[in-house]
Amino acid sequence: MDLFQALRERRSCRNYDSRPVEPEKIQQILEAGGWAPSVMNKQPWRFIVIQNQNIKEHIKFSCEETLNYMHQVSGWKWLGKYPLDYLMDAPVLIAVIANPKDTGAEQFLPDRGEGYAFSCCAAIQNMLLAAHGLGLASLWFSLYEKDKVREIIGISPEMDLVSMIVLGYAAGEVPNVPRKPVAELTTVVE
Amino acid sequence: MDLFQALRERRSCRNYDSRPVEPEKIQQILEAGGWAPSVMNKQPWRFIVIQNQNIKEHIKFSCEETLNYMHQVSGWKWLGKYPLDYLMDAPVLIAVIANPKDTGAEQFLPDRGEGYAFSCCAAIQNMLLAAHGLGLASLWFSLYEKDKVREIIGISPEMDLVSMIVLGYAAGEVPNVPRKPVAELTTVVE
Repeated sequence: MDLFQALRERRSCRNYDSRPVEPEKIQQILEAGGWAPSVMNKQPWRFIVIQNQNIKEHIKFSCEETLNYMHQVSGWKWLGKYPLDYLMDAPVLIAVIANPKDTGAEQFLPDRGEGYAFSCCAAIQNMLLAAHGLGLASLWFSLYEKDKVREIIGISPEMDLVSMIVLGYAAGEVPNVPRKPVAELTTVVE
Repeated sequence: MDLFQALRERRSCRNYDSRPVEPEKIQQILEAGGWAPSVMNKQPWRFIVIQNQNIKEHIKFSCEETLNYMHQVSGWKWLGKYPLDYLMDAPVLIAVIANPKDTGAEQFLPDRGEGYAFSCCAAIQNMLLAAHGLGLASLWFSLYEKDKVREIIGISPEMDLVSMIVLGYAAGEVPNVPRKPVAELTTVVE
């Protein structure tokens, strides 16, 4: 697939069918993640590929509790009725974790030290694009409590659960989401 | 360019020639950024395109001070002799900024609220890939003090300077950097 087609067409998908993802596609997606840029070339990302329905069910249950909590605290109505079925329907979840010590010199500046997490984000975006290029759908998922999901998956305490990826084949068309015109987003300093 | 070729071939470049970047390529790169996924589709990214040599010189001077400071605090030797000429040689810097209020429901969880910044990282990775696809070289740059560069560029106080991109044509070949094998990075939970 053409790069610019992938950049334009990739969408966040919340509706999956149960068709399994081919192991070689998962491999290609993880490799795409590994090609991301990283702070001081630390390549801090580690990938946990979760395909066990029982563990996914635990994660879904935990995230439903999290949504209830956020609903109460925020007063945001949609959080009270946001379905997380995609955590069960999609055959693959990938937890992207990293050790915050695997960061760059920015750690010596006040309120910094984000390099390890930003590197993981670059890897995640590569993976979402690769998924699209392979005919798969994906979602960058962040509505979880780190400590709870860490315990369910068995992540060691020194690792940060940076984000999760939902991966599978879309059920139906993935809705298009409009984008702001670039001119509205940009200031040019000549 | 093929998506997977771009994912594999993109490199961090620290050596630029002074050939200007065509405005339509800058436009395509910003558009690629705008197609990134974002938390609650907030599209929090704002782009400041800096081509003024005088402002770039101020940024370089500020970052040299920052490197000196980090060198002293960290004891990391390379920081004392890390040249920042690329900030002047590359014709374009892009500051990616965002309002931390443009984040998602994760803000209601302890020590969270990173969604706006992670969305910007997705946009940046899209932009680096687009740059490569257009024959340009780039660098994800984070060795700056936010308050100092904010003042030089004139960023309003509510906006976070998430990261900067260095953009231009490479002078010579961009060195290849080896990657860890995916098997070393991955745990599979069947």
